Amino acid sequence: MPYDFETVIDRRATNSVKWDVKPNELPMWVADMDFKTAPEIITALKAKADFGIFGYEELPAAYYQAVVDWWASEHQFRPQLDSLLFCTGVVPAISSIVRKMTAVGDNVLVQAPVYNMFYHSIENNGRHTVSSDLVYHDGHYAIDFDDLETKLADPLTTLMIVCNPHNPIGLVWSRATLQRIGTLALQHHVLVLADEIHADLTLNGNQYTPFASLTPDVAANSIAAVSPSKTFNVAALHAATLMIPDPTIRARVSRGINNDELAEPNSFAVPGSIAAYTQGRQWVAELRQKLAANQRQLQQFIQTELPAVTVIEAQATYLVWLDISQIAPDSKVLADEIRANTGLFISAGDVYRGDGRQFLRINIACPTAELTDGLQRLKAGIDQYQAQH
Amino acid sequence: MPYDFETVIDRRATNSVKWDVKPNELPMWVADMDFKTAPEIITALKAKADFGIFGYEELPAAYYQAVVDWWASEHQFRPQLDSLLFCTGVVPAISSIVRKMTAVGDNVLVQAPVYNMFYHSIENNGRHTVSSDLVYHDGHYAIDFDDLETKLADPLTTLMIVCNPHNPIGLVWSRATLQRIGTLALQHHVLVLADEIHADLTLNGNQYTPFASLTPDVAANSIAAVSPSKTFNVAALHAATLMIPDPTIRARVSRGINNDELAEPNSFAVPGSIAAYTQGRQWVAELRQKLAANQRQLQQFIQTELPAVTVIEAQATYLVWLDISQIAPDSKVLADEIRANTGLFISAGDVYRGDGRQFLRINIACPTAELTDGLQRLKAGIDQYQAQH
Repeated sequence: MPYDFETVIDRRATNSVKWDVKPNELPMWVADMDFKTAPEIITALKAKADFGIFGYEELPAAYYQAVVDWWASEHQFRPQLDSLLFCTGVVPAISSIVRKMTAVGDNVLVQAPVYNMFYHSIENNGRHTVSSDLVYHDGHYAIDFDDLETKLADPLTTLMIVCNPHNPIGLVWSRATLQRIGTLALQHHVLVLADEIHADLTLNGNQYTPFASLTPDVAANSIAAVSPSKTFNVAALHAATLMIPDPTIRARVSRGINNDELAEPNSFAVPGSIAAYTQGRQWVAELRQKLAANQRQLQQFIQTELPAVTVIEAQATYLVWLDISQIAPDSKVLADEIRANTGLFISAGDVYRGDGRQFLRINIACPTAELTDGLQRLKAGIDQYQAQH
Repeated sequence: MPYDFETVIDRRATNSVKWDVKPNELPMWVADMDFKTAPEIITALKAKADFGIFGYEELPAAYYQAVVDWWASEHQFRPQLDSLLFCTGVVPAISSIVRKMTAVGDNVLVQAPVYNMFYHSIENNGRHTVSSDLVYHDGHYAIDFDDLETKLADPLTTLMIVCNPHNPIGLVWSRATLQRIGTLALQHHVLVLADEIHADLTLNGNQYTPFASLTPDVAANSIAAVSPSKTFNVAALHAATLMIPDPTIRARVSRGINNDELAEPNSFAVPGSIAAYTQGRQWVAELRQKLAANQRQLQQFIQTELPAVTVIEAQATYLVWLDISQIAPDSKVLADEIRANTGLFISAGDVYRGDGRQFLRINIACPTAELTDGLQRLKAGIDQYQAQH
């Protein structure tokens, strides 16, 4: 029996950050999905609620085993069981690792345009962001390795955050690329932190390479953060896992997340995650089909109706990066006008820095009816912008 | 219909920290209860699970309103709605406040014997603990105000953590005492952080005084941390509220808990807390009766069977502080032998520092059958200790 990705669910008045919008507005911005999670997860959460005692929780072996087995079956890589640490989230882990593994005033290297929360985690903790901007050419992004190496070689650069799959551009980095990044980082004494939160949401046959699966020397210089949050639409389950092959780095990070009070699971994090990773395979397979279908619908619509927009084809994630440089010089102005005129709330690319000012990011993880509505609003908003400018 | 506090529930193999013990062991140590929470809370949690979408959550006005209304009805004090901040827990808040509101190397003042996690929050963040030890005399504890003022007057003392009701001794501080502490702290430029996590669990007619209800000048120099966690046995719901009357202090603490990734609620924290505070009144009233009855059972048992033990009468909390100085010079040795010989796992007092070495702490929040079993084990363990030493 196929799972349901078509019912439109009213998320207003449910404390949703995404849906805290005006009555006429349609939010397609922050990265959660308008689908119910897998019913197997809901069953597990209800069973936990029914148990009725919500005292201090510890991590059972079954939790880590579920993560290992999922990676083995979904990603053809079996992490060492003892390399794993629970954390309350990927962003909390990034913030804690920045605090624990770098010093105030250090440089943390990123590849803009990239997930905007990286900048908060770096800068709110008194570190400096250095970006080796991705190079955009003819609808594709690439790494300028000379620039990357120069910035890794700066002795003040102590940490690099890799985003794979890369939000917001949807690129899945190849094993060769990751190995090259990891080798340079190792050579220049820069620790690698890989945000792999979108690992499970590769599309159209693309496959992601876990950083921990690279050569042992490179893997030993890395921390990867994964979570069921994007995959199963459980951001507020507050569950994530760190893969840290090196025992010394792992012990330091463990102390950091414990000290920062990010190491204890809430009552639902463990049963929800175990249900996801042990019973969620078919649901994710169908979700990926739905996301790929939505991607095609968007591509076809834009090709026909908005030919001045270039779609950067996402190899993963439900976030699509739209080049609007032929329409507007500043996507923030465009996004604001689209929202004001049509109620469609999508992300202006400037928050991701780099060349983000010429892009919009749209979240297409929603039922067809919503996506269709969103695309029509997008066209109406762009048409109106063009008519007025 | 009265609520059920008598059914013994098997918590083994439920990821419980408390019940991660050997098959023959009976844990009466860490502070969670062996009772199911209020059924009204379970219903709310199941409704949230059924909704099925667990995206990013924000705090609705209804959450803060529920806290305000609970304090007004239960504690005769109505906090300002805008003085409240959500946090993922009281201990996380303490750690974050230590980091944000004091500097590395500062002194943080406590009153030992006191909740051991305070020491972790202070010292793991590179601050120094200074204690104005409570003075124990004839079965009662009191504050040495000369000593307290000397330590508050040290310019390196920047924060004082007040514990009210005071864990592990069960004392409820009077309004006059709190006002005197607060006035001294204000005079010496020391911020007060009041851990009021046991506020709702006063017993036998005792009433707790919210720090925020003191005179406006003293309240403005304070932060209080409250939570449904102890009251409703929902430690792993990961919900707490900070009461911070002063807007500048509040803004700084808010930035601290946001930066530390402790400000976002998980999917269940808000509905669980709202159900607790809006529908849990009768359950708590009955719980307090049960805890008072357990306290009487323990007192009578010890009076009859273990007259060498002095029970410090708890005015609040389900933790009882037992003076064993007539039996053993070191409660750690005694606790270890009791556990080894009888399987009863209770807390040695040394972790609370101060005079804790002459005390045991026992958690009596359990059905009568368990308590009776625990008391018999306690007697057997102490008898055996005395026979062997």
